[in-house]
Amino acid sequence: MSSHLLSVDSLSRDHVNHLMRVAKRMEPFACRRQVTRVLEGAVLGNLFFEASTRTRVSFNAAFCRLGGSVCDTTGFTFSSMAKGESLYDTSRVMSGYCDAIVMRHPDQGSVAEFAAATHVPVINGGDGPGEHPSQALLDFYTIDKEFAHLGKSLAGAHVLLTGDLKHGRTVHSLIKLLSLYDEMRISLVSPPGLEMPTPLIDLVTSRGHRVEQRESLAGDFSDLDVVYTTRIQKERFTQEMSENFAGVSEDFTVNRAFLDSRCNATTIVMHPLPRDSRPGANDLDVDLNGDSRLAIFRQTDNGIPVRMAIFATLLGVEELVERDARPVRWFVPARVGVDDPEF
Amino acid sequence: MSSHLLSVDSLSRDHVNHLMRVAKRMEPFACRRQVTRVLEGAVLGNLFFEASTRTRVSFNAAFCRLGGSVCDTTGFTFSSMAKGESLYDTSRVMSGYCDAIVMRHPDQGSVAEFAAATHVPVINGGDGPGEHPSQALLDFYTIDKEFAHLGKSLAGAHVLLTGDLKHGRTVHSLIKLLSLYDEMRISLVSPPGLEMPTPLIDLVTSRGHRVEQRESLAGDFSDLDVVYTTRIQKERFTQEMSENFAGVSEDFTVNRAFLDSRCNATTIVMHPLPRDSRPGANDLDVDLNGDSRLAIFRQTDNGIPVRMAIFATLLGVEELVERDARPVRWFVPARVGVDDPEF
Amino acid sequence: MSSHLLSVDSLSRDHVNHLMRVAKRMEPFACRRQVTRVLEGAVLGNLFFEASTRTRVSFNAAFCRLGGSVCDTTGFTFSSMAKGESLYDTSRVMSGYCDAIVMRHPDQGSVAEFAAATHVPVINGGDGPGEHPSQALLDFYTIDKEFAHLGKSLAGAHVLLTGDLKHGRTVHSLIKLLSLYDEMRISLVSPPGLEMPTPLIDLVTSRGHRVEQRESLAGDFSDLDVVYTTRIQKERFTQEMSENFAGVSEDFTVNRAFLDSRCNATTIVMHPLPRDSRPGANDLDVDLNGDSRLAIFRQTDNGIPVRMAIFATLLGVEELVERDARPVRWFVPARVGVDDPEF
Repeated sequence: MSSHLLSVDSLSRDHVNHLMRVAKRMEPFACRRQVTRVLEGAVLGNLFFEASTRTRVSFNAAFCRLGGSVCDTTGFTFSSMAKGESLYDTSRVMSGYCDAIVMRHPDQGSVAEFAAATHVPVINGGDGPGEHPSQALLDFYTIDKEFAHLGKSLAGAHVLLTGDLKHGRTVHSLIKLLSLYDEMRISLVSPPGLEMPTPLIDLVTSRGHRVEQRESLAGDFSDLDVVYTTRIQKERFTQEMSENFAGVSEDFTVNRAFLDSRCNATTIVMHPLPRDSRPGANDLDVDLNGDSRLAIFRQTDNGIPVRMAIFATLLGVEELVERDARPVRWFVPARVGVDDPEF
Repeated sequence: MSSHLLSVDSLSRDHVNHLMRVAKRMEPFACRRQVTRVLEGAVLGNLFFEASTRTRVSFNAAFCRLGGSVCDTTGFTFSSMAKGESLYDTSRVMSGYCDAIVMRHPDQGSVAEFAAATHVPVINGGDGPGEHPSQALLDFYTIDKEFAHLGKSLAGAHVLLTGDLKHGRTVHSLIKLLSLYDEMRISLVSPPGLEMPTPLIDLVTSRGHRVEQRESLAGDFSDLDVVYTTRIQKERFTQEMSENFAGVSEDFTVNRAFLDSRCNATTIVMHPLPRDSRPGANDLDVDLNGDSRLAIFRQTDNGIPVRMAIFATLLGVEELVERDARPVRWFVPARVGVDDPEF
Repeated sequence: MSSHLLSVDSLSRDHVNHLMRVAKRMEPFACRRQVTRVLEGAVLGNLFFEASTRTRVSFNAAFCRLGGSVCDTTGFTFSSMAKGESLYDTSRVMSGYCDAIVMRHPDQGSVAEFAAATHVPVINGGDGPGEHPSQALLDFYTIDKEFAHLGKSLAGAHVLLTGDLKHGRTVHSLIKLLSLYDEMRISLVSPPGLEMPTPLIDLVTSRGHRVEQRESLAGDFSDLDVVYTTRIQKERFTQEMSENFAGVSEDFTVNRAFLDSRCNATTIVMHPLPRDSRPGANDLDVDLNGDSRLAIFRQTDNGIPVRMAIFATLLGVEELVERDARPVRWFVPARVGVDDPEF
């Protein structure tokens, strides 16, 4: 693993296994049973040049739980970059202030360009249509952890990816990670025009996995282990796609009826969030709230141990976190960190 | 007291007394004579979906002074909620990252809806025209502390609430807290159409307090202990109110002439801030700056020990704060925490 | 030195020397060889009412590296000041929450007005066309440190200031600091209409230094020690200046050709940053990237020890920082803090 985390492409199966093991060691701290201060004195530059509350707070909290301090930056207007400063200059300047940098930026490739100019570890927090590797890692960690809980094995698992498979960077990254493992069975369901890009399907197939593309959620998914659904990103549509899309979306909604009639009692439901909960939204119905198969909040909870693991590994402290562990002194609710009431 | 602080309605006299006692114990830390680290490792989600520098920084600083870390979020555009995420989802996600959440939101009831979805303590930092309980508690703490300094007793006190008593949520909450105590005498003065809502007056009267409504600040206030004035919130006016309001406002301005001619030497002046200091503003004249009766900055100073007390109580560490108290090592100005030069 | 840092005008040579010595002692912490926690429990109010990522993060990180906590505020819309709150009120309120305040504000004199109302130390982070003293101090520290590295002495040094010498507050402040020392030789080159103000030239001359104004960068600079270039601030131009300016700018660009043909092998290049790296920009060419004479990133790196020194001095802990120094436990890249690869 390089000194940055820019793309899942740079991760081997060994790298992923290492990060998963470190994330597991972070659980006592993420679930607030213990406090560690191993990054005391370290400063994270948390640079979000594109809006994101969830991801920004998750990185921020993960760094804090290792004992570090965080400087947040949100939005473009607050940036020297608006005055014509290059990514090179911004990178050199920020790396003189900070010990690690998380960066989200609307332009694909911008985070890699930023990372090339600095010596401190840079984590890609999402570069437009590009990559968002920490999301893929927490998705993978969630599947691994849920499977362990259910007594299932990753080998031979059946995973359904659905929604906007063309624009959804999280499903692109996740399918790459899954393909590092053995004998996966991947089903793909998306509206016409929003199919998973062919090069990605070829990659997965070439690694010996079974990939099946279906046209709808109708049909039999009785052996399904995971359904990972994503928002239809209408804002990325061409004019023609927008015109032809009306009326299609509801057929791709994951809801309780789909789970009860076509899947099974241990099929877990994942989503990168945020989901649109307004009436007429098409991705993931709120009628699954309270159903233990809905893993979406356990999934976001897992963002903390996984991002702690990323920081700890890039900053070389993964062997030190337990050394000065102390008990938590404040009141911690019983369910924190395993947040779903029915889990 | 529940595990959240959403409204003063949930507070009994015992709850308020407890918070006041804890706030008193926080003074050495709030006034920077000692440092405590009891919340080391804890993370506060400080979510301000509506603008507020003062309240946001006050909560932030209070949590820091207990040793915790803070993740700020300001404004709506930086939020997943702009993409249609429900309060339920936002709440479940954020409570996986944070140990406590402060939330300000423009919609009444939104913070309670948010709190219902989470297990970590939620503090209402203001929900539009709804509640702002920490402000009421620091107002009450200020009266209590000022009275102790002046050798006065809360029983039988005469408190004048003036300004926009219809829309001012701080005066609504404060009058409820005061009504938990004995034999208060409350005077109310507001422009026509901006009177205190009748149900609130009925509540206070039913608890055995004297309430008197007057039409102006003219008349005798020689036994007045507290005048609490608020900004006329013209932005909440109807068209008709706006047209009839011109010329009325100056009669409701609290200034040195009012204090000197109609009140007494120990009448203290409070205001929830911010006050409008531009010429023609109507709430609280700057000619009282430097007058020891002006308690408005002692009042905001009190926000720190009171908010520390709220955090310490909700997180169950109020008995632990002194345990690892250490001396402050940096230079602290003599007047910090009792900020008024003439006090 | 007063309890605030508002202007370089309040600094004597002894003050500057003291700050330089303290900054040098901060290097092990700024370069992350050691961690100190001397400001543990202290809270900085980092108030940026005008956009600045770089300066804001630099102050934030410097305070964190001393062990303190930081509350950031960015932008005007998030401020009570938008509701008519005076600087006096804002100052009194904030100083009840914080132990030190950094403030950037678009209006000249506003930071001094703010400081007059508070007892806690206030640092001017830039007040429009006014002052930005921490920038001048880090510029001076950079010259001092580079000279020490090159075996040069400050006495008799030849410094060229170029670009927009009329509007550039950093060059105004730097020339004042330089004039506190002995026998400086200052060259000034700016486009017509953007000359250094006469009173500043008179001040420097009256202190016994040689000042030479030239019309272009043509000519001999073979004994030059420092070229300090600034951005032409077209946004501050009058209509007439804008019309006459076209075509002039490229003659004032500092680039590799200028350095190689007219200067010498140890002439260092400085710039307050951000520089405009877009094609046609006029201040500092990117063709010097990678040239060891380009000191601009070492210059921003120096912002950390210098701002740590300012905080430590104003808060009276400059003798305590080493007392609880601990080793850094995380991985620190070799070049952090001396960031230029060719240095």
